[in-house]
Amino acid sequence: MKRNMKVSTAVIRRLPRYYRHLSELQEAGTVRISSSALGGSMGLTASQIRQDLFCFGGFGQQGYGYKVDLLKEEIGEILGISRGHTLIVLGTGNLGRAIIKNFRFSSNGFRLLAAFDVDPAVVGAQIAGVPVYHADGLEAFIAGHGVDVGMLTVPISAAQEMGDRLAGAGVKGIWNLTNCEILCDRPEVVVESVHFSDSLLALSYMISQQEGSEEEKG
Amino acid sequence: MKRNMKVSTAVIRRLPRYYRHLSELQEAGTVRISSSALGGSMGLTASQIRQDLFCFGGFGQQGYGYKVDLLKEEIGEILGISRGHTLIVLGTGNLGRAIIKNFRFSSNGFRLLAAFDVDPAVVGAQIAGVPVYHADGLEAFIAGHGVDVGMLTVPISAAQEMGDRLAGAGVKGIWNLTNCEILCDRPEVVVESVHFSDSLLALSYMISQQEGSEEEKG
Repeated sequence: MKRNMKVSTAVIRRLPRYYRHLSELQEAGTVRISSSALGGSMGLTASQIRQDLFCFGGFGQQGYGYKVDLLKEEIGEILGISRGHTLIVLGTGNLGRAIIKNFRFSSNGFRLLAAFDVDPAVVGAQIAGVPVYHADGLEAFIAGHGVDVGMLTVPISAAQEMGDRLAGAGVKGIWNLTNCEILCDRPEVVVESVHFSDSLLALSYMISQQEGSEEEKG
Repeated sequence: MKRNMKVSTAVIRRLPRYYRHLSELQEAGTVRISSSALGGSMGLTASQIRQDLFCFGGFGQQGYGYKVDLLKEEIGEILGISRGHTLIVLGTGNLGRAIIKNFRFSSNGFRLLAAFDVDPAVVGAQIAGVPVYHADGLEAFIAGHGVDVGMLTVPISAAQEMGDRLAGAGVKGIWNLTNCEILCDRPEVVVESVHFSDSLLALSYMISQQEGSEEEKG
């Protein structure tokens, strides 16, 4: 498979969606799917699907479509799901707690090892079976357990400092859910942010466009 | 301003980031910024910045850069921030609660009117001043208050049903944070999803690529 060719950010962003859709198809018992059916459920054209998957060496067979389980496995491989990445959570407020309790880390190839906080009310306890340690022990834990990713759900006021500590302690990636930008001057540390406000503002834009055309019509 | 020209999805997705960065610059007291400085802080080139902003009729003056407050206001206008959109929250579990308590809806131009749940322990109470009503009253509330957006933070098992009810009751947009796909056959209703797993899998891909090159070197 041509894994090392340069792949555009747009394609990378679509890969997890493919993986998600294929997982849903697999759960629904679908064995085989055509590019056009897969595209239809994802809002993409059959030709986009074929182009995207061709980037990774092409799967599927002309006229027969894709085998759901094989394609899912291949895309999962590309996404690194079988690499056994490990993750810790920083901040066990409502958001951290929601993710710990409900997010299926293992379906995404991650092992959630521990959570960290400074609140004495939660340090020493467990959330959904995940132990919560004091943030003082962060660096020692990362060094001792080979943590790949630190997830940030701390308050905005602590976000940059905790991001710096994660990067300094040697994680490979920071998953930033604080809704503020984290600066990181180490090129070897990948920062991926979920910006809730960017999503809501994109929605605001789209409904405003529709309101705009309604107003013009009316 | 040329607001009605066709704008690419990529540019639309960047607009909220511009707005966020400009808000931070404004808070830091920055009055004027060049394309290259704005690009630097956003990981974009000066030429990308100029191209993006040109889509909306171009702001700024050759050699003088952009006035932060004016540019922020113009972009906010494009994003519909001054339109006074209203929003309700469906589902007050940990995630719903985290967003109600911490998310600055008003900075994004939204008024959070109410939350809905079915849990007797929370119906009738308030969360950070926001009243929680029983989901039975959803349709009547939407009709009575002209709700623009319904935010979904219900369990996955209830996501599609509640999405259908929101669309049927006449909201313009659904902000879906359930981490599952919502189908909506009404083209007039915009569905915008925050997919946590897509973000984590993109991070997984990026750190796997780095691990791959380390392995090749070693």
